[in-house]
Amino acid sequence: MTIADLDTPAVVVDLDIFERNLTRVADYAAHHNLRLRPHTKTHKSPDVARMQLALGAAGLTVAKVGEAEVMSAALAQPDLDLLVAFPIFGALKVKRLRAVAERCNVTVALDSLEAARQLEGTGAAVLVEVDVGLGRVGVTPDEALELARQVQRIPGVRFRGLTFYPGHIRQPDEAAIAKLSQVVGGMVERFRAAGLPCEIVSGGSTPTLFHSHEVEGVNEIRPGTYVFNDLNTVASGECTLNDCAASVLVTVASMPRTHTAIVDGGSKTFSSDRLSGSEGVTFGRVVEAPGTRFHKMNEEHGFLDTEKSERRLELGQKIRVIPNHVCVVMNLHEFVYGVRGEAVEKIWKVEARGRLQ
Amino acid sequence: MTIADLDTPAVVVDLDIFERNLTRVADYAAHHNLRLRPHTKTHKSPDVARMQLALGAAGLTVAKVGEAEVMSAALAQPDLDLLVAFPIFGALKVKRLRAVAERCNVTVALDSLEAARQLEGTGAAVLVEVDVGLGRVGVTPDEALELARQVQRIPGVRFRGLTFYPGHIRQPDEAAIAKLSQVVGGMVERFRAAGLPCEIVSGGSTPTLFHSHEVEGVNEIRPGTYVFNDLNTVASGECTLNDCAASVLVTVASMPRTHTAIVDGGSKTFSSDRLSGSEGVTFGRVVEAPGTRFHKMNEEHGFLDTEKSERRLELGQKIRVIPNHVCVVMNLHEFVYGVRGEAVEKIWKVEARGRLQ
Repeated sequence: MTIADLDTPAVVVDLDIFERNLTRVADYAAHHNLRLRPHTKTHKSPDVARMQLALGAAGLTVAKVGEAEVMSAALAQPDLDLLVAFPIFGALKVKRLRAVAERCNVTVALDSLEAARQLEGTGAAVLVEVDVGLGRVGVTPDEALELARQVQRIPGVRFRGLTFYPGHIRQPDEAAIAKLSQVVGGMVERFRAAGLPCEIVSGGSTPTLFHSHEVEGVNEIRPGTYVFNDLNTVASGECTLNDCAASVLVTVASMPRTHTAIVDGGSKTFSSDRLSGSEGVTFGRVVEAPGTRFHKMNEEHGFLDTEKSERRLELGQKIRVIPNHVCVVMNLHEFVYGVRGEAVEKIWKVEARGRLQ
Repeated sequence: MTIADLDTPAVVVDLDIFERNLTRVADYAAHHNLRLRPHTKTHKSPDVARMQLALGAAGLTVAKVGEAEVMSAALAQPDLDLLVAFPIFGALKVKRLRAVAERCNVTVALDSLEAARQLEGTGAAVLVEVDVGLGRVGVTPDEALELARQVQRIPGVRFRGLTFYPGHIRQPDEAAIAKLSQVVGGMVERFRAAGLPCEIVSGGSTPTLFHSHEVEGVNEIRPGTYVFNDLNTVASGECTLNDCAASVLVTVASMPRTHTAIVDGGSKTFSSDRLSGSEGVTFGRVVEAPGTRFHKMNEEHGFLDTEKSERRLELGQKIRVIPNHVCVVMNLHEFVYGVRGEAVEKIWKVEARGRLQ
């Protein structure tokens, strides 16, 4: 089977680039003695998770219990160290988490005593989530110690350390990393001084990935997007276009006007995610003709302005588009096709797509 | 089972509102002698399609062959009149279409001779797609007759009529409808005068829905969103908030700062679709406290600004959010829960979600 045999839209992964991405980050983590706990939200595939573990990953991260269910069942490794990076609330979710915790070691990231109390009797451990500047979830660095102490007092719930997500750093320059290091290092030192040392201090986003060793106190990283990369990663400066392994194969289905091509992929194929930090609205880069402007989408229609395309597009032609944000793209597809040159070598099922929280 | 028993995020449909929406449009179409061919892209569920057919729908619309496969297989009605509202290209897709055409009557909307030629030997009929102002797919009204003549010359391919999607009309005022009527009426008249009468003239978007009978020549409508409605439909003026049947049940999982609540639904639950025609960025309306501002999303996190909330939100509380665009929401979920009051009465599988084009 070759790429030409694939029906569109199809997510195509260049296996050479993908394997290089996997190895590069595994090597980086090993070299700097960082535990690598890849975030599986990007690929949602136990097959890819297995490769990450084979390359030395110390554990896995999932975004929700639904993904934890898929990964723990498919991998069937009782010693798997699985982090659910979201607070758990509600009897049903707690029950599902307990079932996962019977299959592997589960840790939950959370930022409130209420969330920690939910874990009583589940066997799950806790990382206290700290907000280091993103302004999403997390206690402040000053509040972390108090929450950790409260967590420790809950019977059967084990405090393992801290987690943070520096998603506010899109362009990781020296000043941004130094500031982050000061905040995290200071916090870790306060925990040590208080007699509550952290087994795990988990940081790392894809944009800040290769700066993780410069952040004082961090001993674990949780990158997700690095396996495929996307235009957002390129924009952050942490990779080049040559490191983008994933693209979406689409077909030109209509050329109704001069300089207009409509492809068979819109927001139900690419999501509506815009390019981070970009002023203009564009939804991907056409590999065969990068001057093409992918400027608009409806659910199943992608609008290309071909005025500055380097090649003429033809009706029925298949083209590849590198997406803005690969994690949301994967969540919209049932299968991913791994290719080597033109040959389709692997088909992965996106097992955990669209799962419950 | 009640709503309180549902794990989150979950798409909840108020069955009273939903049934009223179905009936209202069926009655409207019957009253004005319009064929109703609902677009199933909104619900992607054969169960809902069956209800639409039971209420008198003359056929169904699908966005792609993947949806046609699901609907034709599940409904198993050889006389089903199924419109695939997208040009078909490529040997694989044509082969799949041929298999669908063996199970029911298939018509394809297209805008080029190249696309029409793909249908040779499939048994599919053709509606010529006309661009009436949206600037997406479609020939111009002046080009339609020539393309229809060319289609007629392809052996075994039957020309059935015209289709258009007036998606450019977001606020259907008198002037916009009058202009549309002139364009469509003129075109239909030219076809008649040329001895090529149209069996079907298919129009109708959700915003222009109840104006369809005012458009000269139209004898069929293809609304989709009307079954559930959403904030976009409310913004268009074609329905009120009381007609919005679908909401997403989410849980407040973190309240890290004053006036901030984080819920367990982000772009992988709601999509990143913004509100049409709105200046600000908001992602839904919190039913329990509409003053809440849903202003930001990550993949699994929804950011609520609760400063102007009418009620205090609590950690662990479940709340309902009416989405901007319900069609892309459905595509992200595996199940939909039909409720009557607090009781969960029906569970539909979103069978056609995430299918291939």
